[in-house]
Amino acid sequence: MRHKKSNMTQKQKPLILITNDDGVQAKGINELIAGVRSLGQIVVIAPDGARSGMSSAISSQNPIRLQLLKQEDDLTIYSCTGTPVDCVKVGVNEILDRQPDLVLAGINHGSNSAVCVIYSGTIGATLEGCILGIPSVGVSLCCRHESDADFTQAVRYGKQVAEKVLAEGLPKGVCLNLNVPQTDDVKGLKVCTQTPGYWIKEFQPAQDPFGRPVYWLSGEFLNEDPDNEANDEWALEHGYAALVPLQLDMTAYSVLDDFKKSYE
Amino acid sequence: MRHKKSNMTQKQKPLILITNDDGVQAKGINELIAGVRSLGQIVVIAPDGARSGMSSAISSQNPIRLQLLKQEDDLTIYSCTGTPVDCVKVGVNEILDRQPDLVLAGINHGSNSAVCVIYSGTIGATLEGCILGIPSVGVSLCCRHESDADFTQAVRYGKQVAEKVLAEGLPKGVCLNLNVPQTDDVKGLKVCTQTPGYWIKEFQPAQDPFGRPVYWLSGEFLNEDPDNEANDEWALEHGYAALVPLQLDMTAYSVLDDFKKSYE
Repeated sequence: MRHKKSNMTQKQKPLILITNDDGVQAKGINELIAGVRSLGQIVVIAPDGARSGMSSAISSQNPIRLQLLKQEDDLTIYSCTGTPVDCVKVGVNEILDRQPDLVLAGINHGSNSAVCVIYSGTIGATLEGCILGIPSVGVSLCCRHESDADFTQAVRYGKQVAEKVLAEGLPKGVCLNLNVPQTDDVKGLKVCTQTPGYWIKEFQPAQDPFGRPVYWLSGEFLNEDPDNEANDEWALEHGYAALVPLQLDMTAYSVLDDFKKSYE
Repeated sequence: MRHKKSNMTQKQKPLILITNDDGVQAKGINELIAGVRSLGQIVVIAPDGARSGMSSAISSQNPIRLQLLKQEDDLTIYSCTGTPVDCVKVGVNEILDRQPDLVLAGINHGSNSAVCVIYSGTIGATLEGCILGIPSVGVSLCCRHESDADFTQAVRYGKQVAEKVLAEGLPKGVCLNLNVPQTDDVKGLKVCTQTPGYWIKEFQPAQDPFGRPVYWLSGEFLNEDPDNEANDEWALEHGYAALVPLQLDMTAYSVLDDFKKSYE
C-alpha cells in the first residue's frame, strides 16, 4: 500500500511539517508538537531513531521507508528510516498534498549554535525546508542533551517565533536558527550572528573488545570570538534566546572580485 | 596497535590531506592523488566505500576505524569507516603530526555545483578543512558519475588551483568549490557565485520484494537563475571550469538589522 497524500486542503489551516534529528520518540519533538498544535494542521515526519550530526545528508544509496504512527484530528505522525533532510523531502514530495506553510525542526536536545549549524541534522532539515521555498525554523535547547531535559522555555520561544513566521513569512533563501537556554529566566530573544570557532580534542581513542583501535568523536568547542556581543554564543552564555538568520547562498561575496583578478 | 602520528616534519614538503566521498577505491581520488603527488607529502584518509550525499555528517553514534592501506615515500593511504568529515577530523587530530598545508577533496564523480554544496560529502570535507583553519579545495567532475569517467581536465584544473592555494593560502573562513566539465576543450577557469535552485520530482516510489512501499531519492535540478552569467551552472554549461569561493559563516547579514527591529 502506497502512503497516500494527506487530504488537508479542506480546512486550510496553516500546514506545519515537523521533524528533528533525535528521532520521533524524543522528548524535544513531542514537546514541540504539543506546544504548536494549536497553530494549525501538524504533520510530523521524523527519523525512527537518533540522527544527530547528520547535517544535510541524504539517502543516496538506499531507499527510505515510512511508517504511519498516528492519524487523528490535525495531527499525523510518521517515522522515517532516512535522514532529517529525507524527512522533509519525502513529506513535501510524497505525503503532503500542498506546500507546508512552515517547517519546524527540533526541539533539539543540545545547542546548535556557532559552527554546529554545519553539522546539525536539525539545521539540515531547516535548510532543506528553505531550499524547497518553505519558511523554516530550527529550534534547539542549549545545552542539555539529556532525554528528560526541561523544554519549557524552548517551547515558549519556539512557538512565539513560529507564530511570527506563519504570519509574516521569511525572505527567500533565509531560514532561522533558534537556540534557547535551559533556564526559567530567559532574558529575551536576541537576533545574532553565527559565532566563529571550531572543535578541538575531537576524538577519544579507545579499543574495541578485540583490542583494535577505534576513535570516538568527542571534543570541546573553541570560541574564536567570545567577547563579541553580536554572536549567538555570547547571547546564550548571557541568558538570551539566540536567533540567527541563516542563508543558503554560501558564496563568499567579499572575496569574489579579488578572486576573479587572481584566478581567472 | 594505535595508529601512530606520521613523522613527516623532517622534509617539510607541503603536507596535503586528501579525501573524498566516493570512497578510497574510486577513480576520481586516485587520479587526483597521481596528479598532485609531485606537490608534496600526500596523506589520504578516505571512506572505505561510497559516502555520496553525506554533507557535513559526523559519526556521533559509533566509533570510527582506520585501516592503513599503503605507506611509501611521500604517500600514505588509509581507509576510514566514517564520513568524509570524520576523515578530515581524524586525520588532523590523530594521524598527522602537523597541520596540513592543504585539504583536497575529490575528485567527485559528478558535479557539486549550485545547491549541491549543501548535500555534498566532498564539500562537507572541504568545509571541515576550512573550519579547522586549513586552506581547502573540493574538486568535482561535471557531470559524469560513471566509475570510468575521464578526469583529465579535472585533474589539470585541480592541480592548478591546488598549486596556487599552496603558494598563496586562502582567506580565513573561505574555501573553494571547483567543478570541471568533462570535455577536452575547457574554456578556462571562471570565478562564480552559487547558483540558486532546488531539486524537484525527488523520489521514485517503488516496492520492496515484499510489496512494501519504499522511496528512492532521485529528481532533477531546477535552476532558478539559468541566464545569469555570474553563477556556476552558467559557467559549466558554457564549457568553463567553475570556481566558487564558499564561506563558513551562514549568517544572513543582509536581513540582520530588519530582524533585530522585528524579532527583538
